[in-house]
Amino acid sequence: MKHRIAILGASGYTGAELVRLIASHPSMQIVALSADRKAGMAMAEVFPFLRHLDLPKLQKIDEIDFSGVDLCFCALPHATTQLVVASLPRNLKIVDLSADFRLRDPAEYEKWYGAPHAAVDLQKEAVYGLTEFYREDIRNGRLVAGTGCNAATGQYALRPLISAGVIDLDSILIDLKAGVSGAGRSLKENLLHAELSGGTHSYSAGGKHRHLGEFDQEFSKLAGRPVHIQFTPHLLPMNRGILATTYVKADPREVHKVLSDAYAAEPFLQVLPFGALPSTRDIAGSNYCHIGVIGDRIPGRTVVIAVLDNLTKGSSGQALQNANLMLGIEETAGLGLAPMFP
Amino acid sequence: MKHRIAILGASGYTGAELVRLIASHPSMQIVALSADRKAGMAMAEVFPFLRHLDLPKLQKIDEIDFSGVDLCFCALPHATTQLVVASLPRNLKIVDLSADFRLRDPAEYEKWYGAPHAAVDLQKEAVYGLTEFYREDIRNGRLVAGTGCNAATGQYALRPLISAGVIDLDSILIDLKAGVSGAGRSLKENLLHAELSGGTHSYSAGGKHRHLGEFDQEFSKLAGRPVHIQFTPHLLPMNRGILATTYVKADPREVHKVLSDAYAAEPFLQVLPFGALPSTRDIAGSNYCHIGVIGDRIPGRTVVIAVLDNLTKGSSGQALQNANLMLGIEETAGLGLAPMFP
Amino acid sequence: MKHRIAILGASGYTGAELVRLIASHPSMQIVALSADRKAGMAMAEVFPFLRHLDLPKLQKIDEIDFSGVDLCFCALPHATTQLVVASLPRNLKIVDLSADFRLRDPAEYEKWYGAPHAAVDLQKEAVYGLTEFYREDIRNGRLVAGTGCNAATGQYALRPLISAGVIDLDSILIDLKAGVSGAGRSLKENLLHAELSGGTHSYSAGGKHRHLGEFDQEFSKLAGRPVHIQFTPHLLPMNRGILATTYVKADPREVHKVLSDAYAAEPFLQVLPFGALPSTRDIAGSNYCHIGVIGDRIPGRTVVIAVLDNLTKGSSGQALQNANLMLGIEETAGLGLAPMFP
Amino acid sequence: MKHRIAILGASGYTGAELVRLIASHPSMQIVALSADRKAGMAMAEVFPFLRHLDLPKLQKIDEIDFSGVDLCFCALPHATTQLVVASLPRNLKIVDLSADFRLRDPAEYEKWYGAPHAAVDLQKEAVYGLTEFYREDIRNGRLVAGTGCNAATGQYALRPLISAGVIDLDSILIDLKAGVSGAGRSLKENLLHAELSGGTHSYSAGGKHRHLGEFDQEFSKLAGRPVHIQFTPHLLPMNRGILATTYVKADPREVHKVLSDAYAAEPFLQVLPFGALPSTRDIAGSNYCHIGVIGDRIPGRTVVIAVLDNLTKGSSGQALQNANLMLGIEETAGLGLAPMFP
Repeated sequence: MKHRIAILGASGYTGAELVRLIASHPSMQIVALSADRKAGMAMAEVFPFLRHLDLPKLQKIDEIDFSGVDLCFCALPHATTQLVVASLPRNLKIVDLSADFRLRDPAEYEKWYGAPHAAVDLQKEAVYGLTEFYREDIRNGRLVAGTGCNAATGQYALRPLISAGVIDLDSILIDLKAGVSGAGRSLKENLLHAELSGGTHSYSAGGKHRHLGEFDQEFSKLAGRPVHIQFTPHLLPMNRGILATTYVKADPREVHKVLSDAYAAEPFLQVLPFGALPSTRDIAGSNYCHIGVIGDRIPGRTVVIAVLDNLTKGSSGQALQNANLMLGIEETAGLGLAPMFP
Repeated sequence: MKHRIAILGASGYTGAELVRLIASHPSMQIVALSADRKAGMAMAEVFPFLRHLDLPKLQKIDEIDFSGVDLCFCALPHATTQLVVASLPRNLKIVDLSADFRLRDPAEYEKWYGAPHAAVDLQKEAVYGLTEFYREDIRNGRLVAGTGCNAATGQYALRPLISAGVIDLDSILIDLKAGVSGAGRSLKENLLHAELSGGTHSYSAGGKHRHLGEFDQEFSKLAGRPVHIQFTPHLLPMNRGILATTYVKADPREVHKVLSDAYAAEPFLQVLPFGALPSTRDIAGSNYCHIGVIGDRIPGRTVVIAVLDNLTKGSSGQALQNANLMLGIEETAGLGLAPMFP
Repeated sequence: MKHRIAILGASGYTGAELVRLIASHPSMQIVALSADRKAGMAMAEVFPFLRHLDLPKLQKIDEIDFSGVDLCFCALPHATTQLVVASLPRNLKIVDLSADFRLRDPAEYEKWYGAPHAAVDLQKEAVYGLTEFYREDIRNGRLVAGTGCNAATGQYALRPLISAGVIDLDSILIDLKAGVSGAGRSLKENLLHAELSGGTHSYSAGGKHRHLGEFDQEFSKLAGRPVHIQFTPHLLPMNRGILATTYVKADPREVHKVLSDAYAAEPFLQVLPFGALPSTRDIAGSNYCHIGVIGDRIPGRTVVIAVLDNLTKGSSGQALQNANLMLGIEETAGLGLAPMFP
Repeated sequence: MKHRIAILGASGYTGAELVRLIASHPSMQIVALSADRKAGMAMAEVFPFLRHLDLPKLQKIDEIDFSGVDLCFCALPHATTQLVVASLPRNLKIVDLSADFRLRDPAEYEKWYGAPHAAVDLQKEAVYGLTEFYREDIRNGRLVAGTGCNAATGQYALRPLISAGVIDLDSILIDLKAGVSGAGRSLKENLLHAELSGGTHSYSAGGKHRHLGEFDQEFSKLAGRPVHIQFTPHLLPMNRGILATTYVKADPREVHKVLSDAYAAEPFLQVLPFGALPSTRDIAGSNYCHIGVIGDRIPGRTVVIAVLDNLTKGSSGQALQNANLMLGIEETAGLGLAPMFP
């Protein structure tokens, strides 16, 4: 029998990506899809690329009967999410893709998101969903919080290095290049094709990007002392993909060995041969993360470059991987899609 | 036990797309990959997006032991192909993706490709690989010739209409918009990103495009008399996808009904509701073909618009669908991937 | 002394393009810029690419003192425009870029734009701004209506052919490919980079596009009898440029000769050598229109392909060219920019 | 009377960009264009976007009569350039756009370019063409060496800061994002639209990029001691534009003041208000360079972001600016084009 799945917020990109992935999942069945403003519409009207699938109509959340649902993906905007999740049955397994349950400390949440958290109890209960590093907690969790897509990319490049103590903790710098689907389906002039294509710019520079809250929380916890990195994201004229160029003070060969060892058994994290440089094109549409390591000409400096697809490994693929763990399914089920190139 | 597959010409886009698709095929195993100039290299070096797969090294064709191969995909350039295919074991099942075996008449081949055919016997034996219209021949065929990607798109829009006798045969016009991967990996200035992106132009206009040979052959055969269409292709700044805007003199509702009926049972051909207009974005990376029908303001004129992914339904997906038939496998095996959007 | 210029609607693309062009105009000076919702802002805040220019602040229209203005460009949305223009001083020279004054017949306006015209007198007074064909009227006009960008492209391909009587009037078909800036700065999901890039689709197909009103009016007038063409526009993942593939029944060499002769003295209309195919890349950012002519393999059929930049020759460049005429300046002043390639 | 100009290497992007710019130059006239493999062709055949200009035919270099040439732009590949320049008349003014005369030290040249320099005397004579910092030398120079486009971008962000002694010299890091036209018209698989669009990757990482030779030379000279920066370039799916994200240890407000003061009188270098972030879209096609400064959340760290168009300010625009100085013309002549947006 198939696991019965609901997706809240199915009219956004991460919701649609979940449907795309689950379409080739051997043991999941979508039984409910929500989209408040588009309730009553068929998914094929909102996303014609899914028209070949037999899917339930879009509903309002309160129209959904959760008693027949085994697991619920929540792909709603932050702030809204905490209210919705608080209203769901207490025994329902939930994988949340918003920012609402990523930070443990309510004060940190308020600092980065500008308002007090409305569901502090749930915030405490939530497991941070970076699969490879919280596998057991996720398996046993009821509410798993998907990570920020940028935060995931940077952490894949850096966590084993911090744990192994092989890099200087006070000079970590991530210069990140992000595709535009990470901004979601929001209607802003600078996301129009006419304004975004053919150029690039930095945004949230200077330490203002909210994913820094996750970096601070996770890296400090790993290091056992406060770690604050420098982080500058850039928006690129591409739809999918994140490339994080990570600058550390460390021995490059040692960095390569630590990462290779740490990820040797991981199905989706692939460390390239030393000196090879990854491309976002090589992971587009897939759950893979490629990591390259190269030494700089200046001794003692190393560049670690990680790439992943923000909609897949950075959000919906991660969410599905976590859901598999929570439901006791093979962790990689539904995630075997090869990247699409060209 | 899995069917053992060889792919000749694995360093091009259609070869790589075959590998991508077969990676999620339940009963095929790739046992040999050829690429003459890149023999000895790992596929991951040529196409890093396939690095997660366990694949045989690239070989020269004459290094391959075909005795253990059940079916061979041939994704080589035209002209070369006829020589290679002629040299392969006579009992080997072959799905060819080149232009070499699409035309029945050697004179037509010479007219469109500028040289006499070097394997006329094989040319006769070959089955035209437009799956939905040659299913039984393909099932029983040994050598199946993949169609041109543009030729496939136009035929999906028009064949049932010609068969049903509902359109004027002397005023068919196809204005086609093609993505750049259809041009393959060839190194030409006008295919560079700097020269192709951000603009469009027509090419092979005026009745010079070689896929007209296929249109002439197939439409004339269907109609039982010569049919010559007008065909103008355009190159667009997109990697995948073909959109064929097809102009016919016919009653629009009748056209919609004929197409809907003809494709009602087809797993990959989807006729949209009357008046709905398809987008190449909605089929990218998948084996689906969407077809829209709309009436013009001028009575008696109808526009049929078909979209498909040139690398999937237009070549490698079609090839795999045909291979499934030839091997007695479920026709849709390995082809269930949802399109990738955005 | 410089001519004093106002631009209403300066926060849209055509307004900004006017500023870009006038920046290199030898005898025009911008004295007022309006943008109702952005009144009070500097142009550099709205369009940072213009930050090197010394420009007046954005104002509300009713804050502008038109007594010191020699000519006013009006780049406002249609419907709004007719109200604004009716409220401006009666002796002010106006070049309008909206759709409001393109159609002579109020019934036609209502048919295509869905509401009665609110300034029928002005509508009668307005001159249709297709420079090369209404030069004397424009020179003497007070209110000149810029043409639709698609309508301009198609007319450049076809007008001399209709006038010369060398094409069949009942089988004219335009398949048009348009860049996205033609849709303006409007916030719609399908104009987002994530949704528009990498694919194409048709829109307003079947004879619904409003520019058909202009084609009908102009071609019927030229022919001296009703002419209704078939017109199917497509949206392409490019920012600037229109390519109109125009299908006519005619002798190709005669078509080429008629067009070449008609445009021999035109500074911006360039007929390519017979058989050469134009590209939108070759006119981007400039006021040039390239026109190619080729014969089809079917005798008596000809393809005429015209390309221009929708923001320049298709709207703001045309508007400036007309303004030059109205002010008695050299017609080409400020319009000498070479296209930008790549 | 106009200055008579020759351009060697006119079939590449920088050559064509020179023609585009000179087309609106008030006092230059192109009298000779060379392109060895395309000698005999019209420029309009090689670059149809220039077809409206009246230009000399392409010639082989040795067919050009340099006696009537006032200044020669040399846009040839490196290594070839030094041989060609050595063969030109000794009194001919030359602006070179290649890498051959950028480095003063023959050993450095050999280190970065892999072969000994074949014209060491000329190398010594050459002036480094970063206009704003070598104005007097350029005015008096005979042979001016255009800078690397990436090297120019980084130097505009950093030179005044090094001169003023306000940044730590041992921790300078430039993470650079470059458009693809910087790679020229070379035919490589990874420059094809199918492979470049929609993704990003780093190249020449780890301190291997040749423009580091210029950074080393110039920054060390400025500082009076060896300065070695860290530099990681990335290739982006855009045609024009470089964005250099420059990380320094310094006080952000002081950095902003130093840059603002240094460039206050510069016509093309624009320092944005503190905290504003520049975009490559805002300088495309123009000779402007925008520079933004922001402080990081970590005290004492500053991010300086510079953007310019690699084909204009980064090469051909710079070359024209230098030529103006060498010929005693207004420095900004022919360079007033506003950027093109969108």
